[in-house]
Parts: sequence; structure tokens; C-alpha cells
Amino acid sequence: MNDLAADSIGAFIPDGRFSVAGASEGPLQGLSFAAKDIFDVAGRVTGCGNPDWARTHAPAARNAGCVQALLDAGAGLIGKTITDELAFSLMGENAHFGTPVNSAAPGRVPGGSSCGSAAAVAGSLCDLALGSDTGGSVRIPASHCGLYGIRTTHGRIALDGTMPLAPSFDVAGWFARDGGLLRRVGAVLLGPPNPGARPGTLLIGTDAFAEADAAVAPALAAALDRVEAAIGRRRAVAIAPDGLAAWYEAFRVLQGAEVWQTHCDWVTRHRPRFGPGVAERFRWVATIDAGQVAAAGAVRRRARRRMDELLGEGAVLCLPTSPSIAPLRGLPGPETERFRTRTLTLTCIAGLAGLPQVTLPLGRIDGSPIGLSLIAAAGADEMLLGLAAAIDQLS
Amino acid sequence: MNDLAADSIGAFIPDGRFSVAGASEGPLQGLSFAAKDIFDVAGRVTGCGNPDWARTHAPAARNAGCVQALLDAGAGLIGKTITDELAFSLMGENAHFGTPVNSAAPGRVPGGSSCGSAAAVAGSLCDLALGSDTGGSVRIPASHCGLYGIRTTHGRIALDGTMPLAPSFDVAGWFARDGGLLRRVGAVLLGPPNPGARPGTLLIGTDAFAEADAAVAPALAAALDRVEAAIGRRRAVAIAPDGLAAWYEAFRVLQGAEVWQTHCDWVTRHRPRFGPGVAERFRWVATIDAGQVAAAGAVRRRARRRMDELLGEGAVLCLPTSPSIAPLRGLPGPETERFRTRTLTLTCIAGLAGLPQVTLPLGRIDGSPIGLSLIAAAGADEMLLGLAAAIDQLS
Repeated sequence: MNDLAADSIGAFIPDGRFSVAGASEGPLQGLSFAAKDIFDVAGRVTGCGNPDWARTHAPAARNAGCVQALLDAGAGLIGKTITDELAFSLMGENAHFGTPVNSAAPGRVPGGSSCGSAAAVAGSLCDLALGSDTGGSVRIPASHCGLYGIRTTHGRIALDGTMPLAPSFDVAGWFARDGGLLRRVGAVLLGPPNPGARPGTLLIGTDAFAEADAAVAPALAAALDRVEAAIGRRRAVAIAPDGLAAWYEAFRVLQGAEVWQTHCDWVTRHRPRFGPGVAERFRWVATIDAGQVAAAGAVRRRARRRMDELLGEGAVLCLPTSPSIAPLRGLPGPETERFRTRTLTLTCIAGLAGLPQVTLPLGRIDGSPIGLSLIAAAGADEMLLGLAAAIDQLS
Repeated sequence: MNDLAADSIGAFIPDGRFSVAGASEGPLQGLSFAAKDIFDVAGRVTGCGNPDWARTHAPAARNAGCVQALLDAGAGLIGKTITDELAFSLMGENAHFGTPVNSAAPGRVPGGSSCGSAAAVAGSLCDLALGSDTGGSVRIPASHCGLYGIRTTHGRIALDGTMPLAPSFDVAGWFARDGGLLRRVGAVLLGPPNPGARPGTLLIGTDAFAEADAAVAPALAAALDRVEAAIGRRRAVAIAPDGLAAWYEAFRVLQGAEVWQTHCDWVTRHRPRFGPGVAERFRWVATIDAGQVAAAGAVRRRARRRMDELLGEGAVLCLPTSPSIAPLRGLPGPETERFRTRTLTLTCIAGLAGLPQVTLPLGRIDGSPIGLSLIAAAGADEMLLGLAAAIDQLS
């Protein structure tokens, strides 16, 4: 790693640059990786993006399972990267540790919450990086930084040694600059391969495209042709017959209730200082009641049934990863909230249903990247990674 | 499998006997296993111990990760076993599907909720069986049925394709008739081995022994000598300076709140018929409020800190798995509740702290088995499995 480059990107937490050698042989031998600072690294405090969290937690006794698996596969760890506070934001602007530089779109946010991991890969400080995705925290920074990224099937990768946020949504994911490496990491982290699924129909989510800026569909048109070349003839569908707005609202309530259940004790006990946005959201999640949760649960079940229905027999659903390119750094609060709502309206689809999603850096608007996403049935992570690798070759 | 034997034990759900061949080679080649009916098996409905659940759910599209991993390792699946309803009981008496026979203590309950899996292994219908453990659902039936069993470190094994109950406590586990096989299964399911931890001090939990029947300590005395021979000189400790009763109460509230969050939508929508005990508990969990959860969370954090402090440097904590041998079948409701409270007072220790625990079938009272348990630090599953195998050899 070039120290000057690393310093100028600001991807790592304070004291977060160190090195742990990987095994001397293995499928990732010779590659380097960074880990979002919600993954435990033995002997170091996992800071989760908030100084009060770091102050009130002891060093980890052992590596998180994902970190250990990459080390065992021969990759070397080069450091811990900045995360949005408690992974509860999509912007990538940490009020305590700063905003990592988005090398693919300087002046714009990297996206979060896995902002430092995305910035480190985009800035070529390492080959790959671990992130986590509850509401879009791998997919959005991958889209903003022009990277390949994956949100895995819920429950497919064990999360020992990883800070929980909203356990029924939390999954591990990772970033790479090419589709081939994204897939090779999957072969290490996904455990027993899930055979069988082969891409069948290509579905284009018209309601998801309608949520995005007008410039997005034309920017992704050539990418869609490549996806069609890999999968087969496309068919337009409306993803949510009851409207994506209802899905977003259900996601927001269920995620919020789980965030509060996960962190209420620590927040109540330590009264941590949170930056803007995160502070307001923590005040809100404490107010969610059982009636809201029950109503949102009913919507979630409908969403799951609908996605099951759409994604049988190897179908692949295609949609924009993000509603726009990365916002400029330092966006005012109300515009940040509006961007968050529009983004979650797209990312909640895979989140509510626990489905895997890959994002491919195949679009560009005004010189800044935007990703095209593919969602498939639960367990079809390998199929999506195979598509990402194949489509990357089809340029 | 002998059909007559299987019928007489009643371990399987209706239509739950079938066979799925394992891979033609692998570390478990030639062995047979059964899976608790909360693990998905492709093409079959996962019934979770309740007929209304089965009626309102579609067949699974793919195997649960744990099932697939055992098949890939060469073990053959022989069927799906009875579970207590939604895995929310420790008795092993399912009001809809009956009580599997405890071959090690006929006339007594097998313990739950992984009752059919334990009964199938105890009755030699298969070599090993998958269970899950939220509040003791592997450890208790292993103790009652005279089996080796493990509750794994929380988050260590991915739970894709497995019914959640209380996600911050839920883990996978398994049963075997000998410690060597218990360990071999771990090498398949635990993923990257966690090197390093070696058994250091042996701690005897005096407050845990004090919770058990007076006959338990003498019944486990010879077993303790074997454990001491494997680990080294024992030292007495009080596990919970603030009392195990406070830990039990925190477990009960936190588990209840998560059960409600997980299942409130389905329960509200379908108004399922539950058997005694489970029905009352579902009415209660709906009433838990945020204040109770916050107070219980504070106790949980204290419990975790205390266990961290006790279990540094390879320490192993020894306690009775259960407060007594298995109760007789058909115990009246109030006695069942009292047994449940006493049992959870012991099992909540590893549960609250997310720690691994193995139980060894080394005690016997009036001819019925009782287990001795070993708890170690998070991630020390392999160390505990190595101890189980070694102690089994030291007879």
C-alpha cells in the first residue's frame, strides 16, 4: 500500500492501518483486503464508527468469521475502514472520522455505511474489502464508487464477531474492482456451493426504474443489453403491485424496531454523541410501537410472497442500484433525508425478502458511476456472482 | 433404518421419513442423519411443530445450509423430526404430533425442543441429528436422552433455511452417541477452524450446582474427575455475582420480546392453535414492553462481561446441563413451568453470552441420564469438541 495514497483517501480509522498476513497458500493468496470497522479483528477494539462505542468496548478476543476465512484463504488484511455510525446511514459521511474520498467521483460522497471499504478498493489501496449490508450499505457505496459489490442471501454467511444492527436484515458483503474477483471471494465465504440455479428469464423492474432520476435508464441502456446477452430476452414487470412506497415504509419500521432492540441498552446507558441524521433516527426508533411492527410485518410477508412468485425458475430481476449518482459531499439535512428515502425504496426490495443482489458498475452520468443491480432467489448467490463475472468479460 | 423401531419411537413427523443420499465421498460418508423440522429440506414444507404453520407455508425451494453441508460431506438424510411448537418449549411433548420415546429413560420426556432428533439418535435410528438451541433445545434433550450434544457459538454457523425464534439467541447444534462423532460433525459445520484456544483452568460453577437437585452433584462426581484429568486442577467459582435468578429473568424477557417480534405477524394473521404452555407464552410475549427490554439488556451486558472475565485464557466452566433427570411424561402445568424456570436458570448462562457449550452424558440418577456441561469462550467450539472426544475416551 502506498502510504501517501492511503492518507489522501482517508479510508481507514485512526490507528486502523496494520497488517495481518494471510495463510501462505489458498485461493486468495497474494491478495490484500480491508475490513469495515464492525468486523472484529483479534486484539483490536471494534469501533463501529462511534468514539463512544470504542470507549465502552474491550478489544476483540478473536477475528470475525469472515475475516478469518479470508486470512485462511491466503488474503492479507491491511486495516480497518471507516463506517457510518453503527452502520446506520447510507451517505458515507462520518461526523467523527470524516468522509473517505470517492476516487471515482471526487467531490461526491462514497456512500455508506461501508464507505471506507468502498473508498479503499476504489482508490486501489487493496484488492477487495469486507462490508455489511442491512439497508444498502454495500450496494450503495459500490454504485457510487464504480465497484462490483454483493449483498448475500440473508443467513447464508455467519456473522460471528460482527456488530449487529437489524438482525433480520443484516448480511455480509464485499467489494472488488472486477467481477471475476468478486466471484472468487464468494467461493471462499459462501460455504457449500448451492448448485442448480441457472439464469432463466430477465425481468426489468419498471417501477424501480421509475423511482430513479430520468437520466438513469438511458445511462444503463447499454448495460442492460449486456445483461440480456448473458441471460436472454427481457420482460418488463412491476415489482410491487401495492407500490414500492409501502415496501419502503415497512422496511423503515421493521429495521428501526430491530435497531432499537439491538442497541437500546447501550444507547440508554451511555448516551453516546451521534452525528446529524443518526441522532434523529435513534430518537425515532425508540418510539416505534408493536402496532406499527405488526402492520409492517404483514407488508413484509406480502413482499416476500411477491418476490418468490417473480423469482422462480432462475429468473433474474434487474433494477438501478441507486436512484442517482452519488450526491455531493455536505448535502443539507432535508436533501440527505430525501435521498435516503429514494435509495431505500430501491434497496428495500432485496432487504425485505432476504435476497441476494449484485451491483455492476456499468453506468455513468456526467462522469460519475451508477450501478446496475441483479436480484435472484434466496441462495442463488453463486448464480449472480457467475453473471457478474461473465458480464464483466462481455465488454 | 428398522421401520418397526422407528415407528415405536415416534421421532419423525407425519410423512417425515424419506431419504436423500449424501455425496459419494466426504468425511461423513456412510453415516445417516435426521433434521429437526425447522430446517428446510428442498421440496418439503418445514412444519415447525405446528399444523397451522405447515398449512400456511409453501415447500422449501432449497436445503438449509446445515442440511446441505452434511449431505455434501457424505451423510445421508433419513427424515425430519418432531420439534416442540415453533421450538418454544423444553419438554419435548408436542400436543399435535405426540411425544417421542426417550430410549434412555422410557416413561420420561425426551426434552425439547429438538425432541425428535434426540430420540432418533438415542434410539439408534441414525448416527447423528441436527437440532437448534435458543434456550437449551439441544442441551436439554441431550442431557435427558444420554447423548453428546453441542450448542455452538452464536453466529458461528449460518442459519439460512432455518426457522428463527429469537435471533440473538438462536444457534444450530447436533447430537451423537459418542464424543468422537460429535467432533467430526463440527469439522464439517463450523467452517474455518479457530486455532489457538487450549484448555487452561477448570472452573466449577458452584451457584449452578446449587440450582440442581441434591442428587446431581454426587451423580456427576466421577465425571468431574474425568474432566479434571483432561483439563487440570479445578477451582470453584460463583458464576453470577448478582444471582442466576436475575440472569434467568433477563433471558426470559429478551427471548420473549424477540419471539414476538419474529412471529407476531404470523400469529396475528393466522391465530394458530397452540398446545398448553406454548399458548400461554405467546400471550405473555405480546405484553413485553420497551422498559422491560432495556432493563433486561443491561443485565445481559453484565452477564457477558462476567463471562468474558471468567473465560479468558482457555478456562472451561463446568456445570450440570439440567437441574434434574428428565421429568415423567405428562407432568401437570405448574410443575412443568417450575421445571422450565429451573432449567433456563442453568441454560441461560451460555445463551445470554452467546457462548458454546457441550454436554457429556456422564451422569445417571435412578437409572436415568443427566449431562455434565462445559462452557468456553466465544469461538472455542473446537476446543470443547476436542474435550468431549478426549473425555469420552477416558472411561
